[in-house]
Amino acid sequence: MNTARTRKQNDSQPSARRRNPLDLLMNSGLGKLLRGIGVAPRQDSGESLLDIADALLSLRGRASGPALASAFFDLYEATDLKARQDFLAKVHDLHPADSTAIDKAIALWNEKQDEASALALNEATESPCRRLINQLNLAPQGTPRLINLREDLLAVPRSARSAGLAALDRELEGAFTAWFNAGFLELRRIAWDSPASLLEHIIRYEAVHEIAGWDDLRRRVQPADRRCYGFFHPQMRNDPLIFVEVALTAQLPGTIREIIAEERESVDPLEASCAIFYSISNCQVGLKGIPFGNHLIKRVVGLLKEELPHLGTFATLSPVPGFARWLAKEQGADARVPGPGELRALAARYLVNAKGQGNQPLDPVARFHLGNGARLEAVHANADLSPNGQKQAHGVMVNYLYDLDEIETNYFALTELGTVAHSKAVQALFEETEGKGGKKPGKAKGQDTVPA
Amino acid sequence: MNTARTRKQNDSQPSARRRNPLDLLMNSGLGKLLRGIGVAPRQDSGESLLDIADALLSLRGRASGPALASAFFDLYEATDLKARQDFLAKVHDLHPADSTAIDKAIALWNEKQDEASALALNEATESPCRRLINQLNLAPQGTPRLINLREDLLAVPRSARSAGLAALDRELEGAFTAWFNAGFLELRRIAWDSPASLLEHIIRYEAVHEIAGWDDLRRRVQPADRRCYGFFHPQMRNDPLIFVEVALTAQLPGTIREIIAEERESVDPLEASCAIFYSISNCQVGLKGIPFGNHLIKRVVGLLKEELPHLGTFATLSPVPGFARWLAKEQGADARVPGPGELRALAARYLVNAKGQGNQPLDPVARFHLGNGARLEAVHANADLSPNGQKQAHGVMVNYLYDLDEIETNYFALTELGTVAHSKAVQALFEETEGKGGKKPGKAKGQDTVPA
Amino acid sequence: MNTARTRKQNDSQPSARRRNPLDLLMNSGLGKLLRGIGVAPRQDSGESLLDIADALLSLRGRASGPALASAFFDLYEATDLKARQDFLAKVHDLHPADSTAIDKAIALWNEKQDEASALALNEATESPCRRLINQLNLAPQGTPRLINLREDLLAVPRSARSAGLAALDRELEGAFTAWFNAGFLELRRIAWDSPASLLEHIIRYEAVHEIAGWDDLRRRVQPADRRCYGFFHPQMRNDPLIFVEVALTAQLPGTIREIIAEERESVDPLEASCAIFYSISNCQVGLKGIPFGNHLIKRVVGLLKEELPHLGTFATLSPVPGFARWLAKEQGADARVPGPGELRALAARYLVNAKGQGNQPLDPVARFHLGNGARLEAVHANADLSPNGQKQAHGVMVNYLYDLDEIETNYFALTELGTVAHSKAVQALFEETEGKGGKKPGKAKGQDTVPA
Amino acid sequence: MNTARTRKQNDSQPSARRRNPLDLLMNSGLGKLLRGIGVAPRQDSGESLLDIADALLSLRGRASGPALASAFFDLYEATDLKARQDFLAKVHDLHPADSTAIDKAIALWNEKQDEASALALNEATESPCRRLINQLNLAPQGTPRLINLREDLLAVPRSARSAGLAALDRELEGAFTAWFNAGFLELRRIAWDSPASLLEHIIRYEAVHEIAGWDDLRRRVQPADRRCYGFFHPQMRNDPLIFVEVALTAQLPGTIREIIAEERESVDPLEASCAIFYSISNCQVGLKGIPFGNHLIKRVVGLLKEELPHLGTFATLSPVPGFARWLAKEQGADARVPGPGELRALAARYLVNAKGQGNQPLDPVARFHLGNGARLEAVHANADLSPNGQKQAHGVMVNYLYDLDEIETNYFALTELGTVAHSKAVQALFEETEGKGGKKPGKAKGQDTVPA
Repeated sequence: MNTARTRKQNDSQPSARRRNPLDLLMNSGLGKLLRGIGVAPRQDSGESLLDIADALLSLRGRASGPALASAFFDLYEATDLKARQDFLAKVHDLHPADSTAIDKAIALWNEKQDEASALALNEATESPCRRLINQLNLAPQGTPRLINLREDLLAVPRSARSAGLAALDRELEGAFTAWFNAGFLELRRIAWDSPASLLEHIIRYEAVHEIAGWDDLRRRVQPADRRCYGFFHPQMRNDPLIFVEVALTAQLPGTIREIIAEERESVDPLEASCAIFYSISNCQVGLKGIPFGNHLIKRVVGLLKEELPHLGTFATLSPVPGFARWLAKEQGADARVPGPGELRALAARYLVNAKGQGNQPLDPVARFHLGNGARLEAVHANADLSPNGQKQAHGVMVNYLYDLDEIETNYFALTELGTVAHSKAVQALFEETEGKGGKKPGKAKGQDTVPA
Repeated sequence: MNTARTRKQNDSQPSARRRNPLDLLMNSGLGKLLRGIGVAPRQDSGESLLDIADALLSLRGRASGPALASAFFDLYEATDLKARQDFLAKVHDLHPADSTAIDKAIALWNEKQDEASALALNEATESPCRRLINQLNLAPQGTPRLINLREDLLAVPRSARSAGLAALDRELEGAFTAWFNAGFLELRRIAWDSPASLLEHIIRYEAVHEIAGWDDLRRRVQPADRRCYGFFHPQMRNDPLIFVEVALTAQLPGTIREIIAEERESVDPLEASCAIFYSISNCQVGLKGIPFGNHLIKRVVGLLKEELPHLGTFATLSPVPGFARWLAKEQGADARVPGPGELRALAARYLVNAKGQGNQPLDPVARFHLGNGARLEAVHANADLSPNGQKQAHGVMVNYLYDLDEIETNYFALTELGTVAHSKAVQALFEETEGKGGKKPGKAKGQDTVPA
Repeated sequence: MNTARTRKQNDSQPSARRRNPLDLLMNSGLGKLLRGIGVAPRQDSGESLLDIADALLSLRGRASGPALASAFFDLYEATDLKARQDFLAKVHDLHPADSTAIDKAIALWNEKQDEASALALNEATESPCRRLINQLNLAPQGTPRLINLREDLLAVPRSARSAGLAALDRELEGAFTAWFNAGFLELRRIAWDSPASLLEHIIRYEAVHEIAGWDDLRRRVQPADRRCYGFFHPQMRNDPLIFVEVALTAQLPGTIREIIAEERESVDPLEASCAIFYSISNCQVGLKGIPFGNHLIKRVVGLLKEELPHLGTFATLSPVPGFARWLAKEQGADARVPGPGELRALAARYLVNAKGQGNQPLDPVARFHLGNGARLEAVHANADLSPNGQKQAHGVMVNYLYDLDEIETNYFALTELGTVAHSKAVQALFEETEGKGGKKPGKAKGQDTVPA
Repeated sequence: MNTARTRKQNDSQPSARRRNPLDLLMNSGLGKLLRGIGVAPRQDSGESLLDIADALLSLRGRASGPALASAFFDLYEATDLKARQDFLAKVHDLHPADSTAIDKAIALWNEKQDEASALALNEATESPCRRLINQLNLAPQGTPRLINLREDLLAVPRSARSAGLAALDRELEGAFTAWFNAGFLELRRIAWDSPASLLEHIIRYEAVHEIAGWDDLRRRVQPADRRCYGFFHPQMRNDPLIFVEVALTAQLPGTIREIIAEERESVDPLEASCAIFYSISNCQVGLKGIPFGNHLIKRVVGLLKEELPHLGTFATLSPVPGFARWLAKEQGADARVPGPGELRALAARYLVNAKGQGNQPLDPVARFHLGNGARLEAVHANADLSPNGQKQAHGVMVNYLYDLDEIETNYFALTELGTVAHSKAVQALFEETEGKGGKKPGKAKGQDTVPA
């Protein structure tokens, strides 16, 4: 699961001649309000942004929150990226932590050590940026505009982020975690009947198997054996947060060609037995780290089961983006690429045994699906012959299987024991290579959905 | 602005014979999941609720959040109020503050005193209930169910609330403040074309001037010179959070009869000059203290201005619920009720001068409107002759005027200087009674909308 | 199936002071248009209506059809019933049949006797009112306004209708037959979530078992085992054409009490086996004779089968409105009412054997359901003890069964052979009374759904 | 205004292997019904179509109309064009005119010569195809399927149409005229937010200035100064009947380049003064001759006036498709093309003076707009340099102006007097060429919107 590569451009507006954005704002209907609360045009729009932020946090301008928030974004969006990032680096320092209040709360805690004093300590350390974010959300389209603002923040290299920037990001992440709770998200089918403005996003955001244009898109969403589902927030009805593409098939596929080729066999949905999740893409860079994605596939599984009760197998056809790099480390960068059989065994070993931070699977796609409670079901060589597929995984792809009755156990085993759930077919790949040093993994699970 | 009096009943379901709710749950489709994570039927459903909450907070059950949250509410809602409140009192103590982590963060803060260590301290003192609330929101209809849960909590008398209950309430309030940010709320007109299930809520929630039934309701929402608007959350499309009733009139009204009488003169909306907000009611007890109400009237003013640009005056016709009590204190409980002229002057004095906590206006309705930036425009005797109107304010009602160009100044004067904005007509009431000890208030404002 | 009793009033508008409607119209924006095409205020609004109708049919005003049609209805609706009916009686004579053209077409037909000359003859005899109706439909809300216009026409006693009025009615009926083709009607569920303005119509239109108010209405549409469906035209989204009330039950009911009592046993829809159509009401007097009603029950059966596949029996619980009158004729007006057993047998005889015009069943409700292809399934005494039920049928009610596999055969038998389809249980009622002179009907059909 | 060139393909369904369509049908759920009414598989599906049509018109199958109509279309659509047309040619003869009934009605007419007998004669000559069409409309998607059926009929060359085919077409035209009455059509904006499946139709149907693909389409519907509106029927929500493309401009444009060029100056809609209708396309071949198109531009004018009240000029930028052909006739096919000035004068002469059938303007686009009450406002040379523009009109384009206050007068003058309304600028073109034989037209009208 990768992430949309570039920020969406706003193609809809022919560009206006550039004028000083703050002048424009002061001359607009909001000018009176801004002057009323003491915001004056300055050389540097960054300073005016700080003035408005200050007004939003102080008494001045409290009663006019939405209008002021709107003025803020109008100015912010007319400012260039560098100046925007400079503003973001400063905003948290506008109202720094109140040491006196903190020290007082610490004294209370040291005395009482109870829930009430923990609470007081928590309140004393709360960042004023939280209130600013809540105020900014009152602007028209406030939520997507804040997402874009965080995208600006995240574009600052991690090493260059000040403590203030980090604190602001934490508050944004906290607000977004509350706002994008999966309970607020709507799961919607994306189809050829969807608005063109929405489908255009799909073309742009698709991060796994590129969509070449409208005809290619149509092949992904219109045929009866193809589906696409996305999570949507009520404030962003035509702009998905994340989406997944699904193929209904007669059997578990072993290559991506079978799914996305222009000419292919179609299947009557009533005769399909598998639903294959072959591409999942995040859409909003500014929502990085917000964990709604974990719910998407499970919700789609529930939906499909209801509509097509005869579907028995729900699985992915997934890339293995870290495999080639890992293999180069294991075998040396110049080693020749092994043959298909050996490649499959090595990929299985990589996915089951290679661990990274927090004893999590090293491969990012594996981390996502296994972390959702899926199991590794099958490993295929020569499955993705595209340049990218060759480069990152020597053409290997895999299936992760979602069995709703097992995800809890699989998740527990992974998190508590570090054990990756896998099928007998995968287990067999290990046994083949055992002599060659493969560490034997735990017990295989379930009925295989593919012949070993 | 009062609050709906009783929790809405679920009238839609013929009552099922009572069986043990936990047995029902264990025998349902969720039973397998519950047994899988170690929840077993217990004597006391409160303990099982604690088990599920524990599962939601620990690793067990992480992958099945929505299903588990659904099971939680099914059980919670089948449990009686006393047991529900007992559970709520215990849930925070399930995962108490981590003293070690807090002490460690304090040590860091004492050493560094910087933003990063303030942040770390804030994180260390965060309640695990926050995560629980986010998990519970994943259930179908999770948001309104959590609102009902907080209603249970608030039904515990403040004096009887444990520290754990207070901490849980603070987390609920924090979550609701984020979720019910006015940027997420939809302002919608409520009319005779609205769903009956929604209108039924209006009848039940109306807290100011009771609605006697469907015919009375129709008189409030159907005529061309009557409007009703509410704020709605996307998760609760047919259940308003707050609503306001509006009458379009030719002039500022001085009695409630003119507005709600069965037989009355109607006005062509295109000839009306005033929009009168004559009733505003909160609907959700469980959203007490969440501040979206302040935005409602201003948003409605904006909407009406766009639709009917000739409207010039936006004002309320409001009760003065604390007046009689204050007067009894001032003049003795047995003093005879003054005549109309004196009553008006006394009411003006009460509203302008009487202050309570935080130097805010003592009267709760005044606190709301003045705190929104409105000004006190006119005071009327014999304006509400209903038993309630006589009892709480000897029949006095007032107009608060919303002038969007002045709300910022009014708000600032009130908050910073403690000065209540008022019209010349109100000022004149003071001058009449000055000899009798009326403290002279600040300067009157603006053009009067009513003859003095 | 009866028909709504009174024309719906427009309750939404407080009455304006009466002024001459034509003056109002000439002074409105349409005045210029009307003067432009030569319509001048006259004493008698009926003459002005004729002028506008004339303009719509001639060249004058062709390009402004919708505006002119709007002016027509504004004036028409402000005119009193008597004057409206006078206008309707004259409008057809405005452009009478063109004898010359007809005679010419007859000459052609006499010469050729072919399809083309039949066509020419049809065209020559076409009424100009057809074009007028099409023009009037261009007005905003043109379709419901034309329905109301036909209601005015139908309020003229049949004996008092002129040839022109009859011709106009035939054109209206022809237009409505085309426009209300069931292919254009939307079958929609009516529930407690439906607009109050729609539900209000249901209360008013219910013609079989009166709805006592909003609480009674709620009992018919909100419980899980109660349904209501209506046919809607796209131009009349909140005003049904016809609706049917359905009860889901465990077995075929024999009394109306079981269905509509305030206190009753409720059934889990997933455990119900029968869908009982217990009330069907036409809503629009002006659509009399337009045959969309026949499709309603069959479409609802299809819908329910899809949603609740375990439903096995689809039947009505119907009144027998003509029974008491028929019985009085048979036995003399003073004969005592027979006991339950004999009553059931006599009612069966009435329904199966008594025929009216065109050899159709004499009873109007029987005519409707049997004409839809249903069969007479059971006859119940003491089934409707309301005054009306006693008066029209001595308390007898019956079930008509809709078996989609049999409706074609039943319909054919009824239409071609005059045979009423009925169950073995009904057949048994005949055999009991055979000795007493009951004419033996044809063979009984199917498996009985009730014990004989 | 041309017409969509090709019937839309159904791209959504991967093609199934060909099997005998009647076999498929008899084996489907409808098979039982078909056998029940005596339809048996035949060699020739045309004969089976006749059987079903016969069933729909006779008693057999009356009760199952919708199912039978559905079966009809399933079979019809699986049959090839030639066989479909053969069926259409025969269906009217299935139930020919009833000579006896006609002769009887003639006798009555001859005797009475009154309205009632004209009516009876009209009824006697009514084609049974009318009832068949009403029955077929009951099928799912019956209306668009009937439109496609008429498209098949119209594809038979006029000279090859039998009397039966002509009679069927007349009935279809009559039904469609009633069904597509503009009062039933919804005017909807088509924008970049519209469903892709709808926008795809726009690309395909555009008949005036070809749309090169999705990017070109986006340029027509997304920018703030571009609009597109269509008429939709409730049964065909994503398939427009006719649509018009509009450009908001600062002044009356004289070339198509200004409008559709990829790079162009954009206009702020709030500063635009003209709305230019630069392309209008019919979408449904099968709706040929149904006159809803006349209402489209006027309705859009009304809509735009409400949204953008400062718009003052509503005009087209239109092709002159018949000009080159007319000129070749006038001047000889080999004459050299005149210079721009002379071309403009000649085009004005062509449009104002050249008349065809019924004394209507000869040019088809002129006939449409002038017949709507527009006036000829300006004539431009070198306005459309595309091959098609050069070929049909030597690059000439014109503006027709829609002034709602004048359309009635213009229409009357055209229809009654044969006079084409035109501006002073056009008048001046005549005067320049008068010496050269230009027939002087009537008086010019109004204020010119362009400098002469």
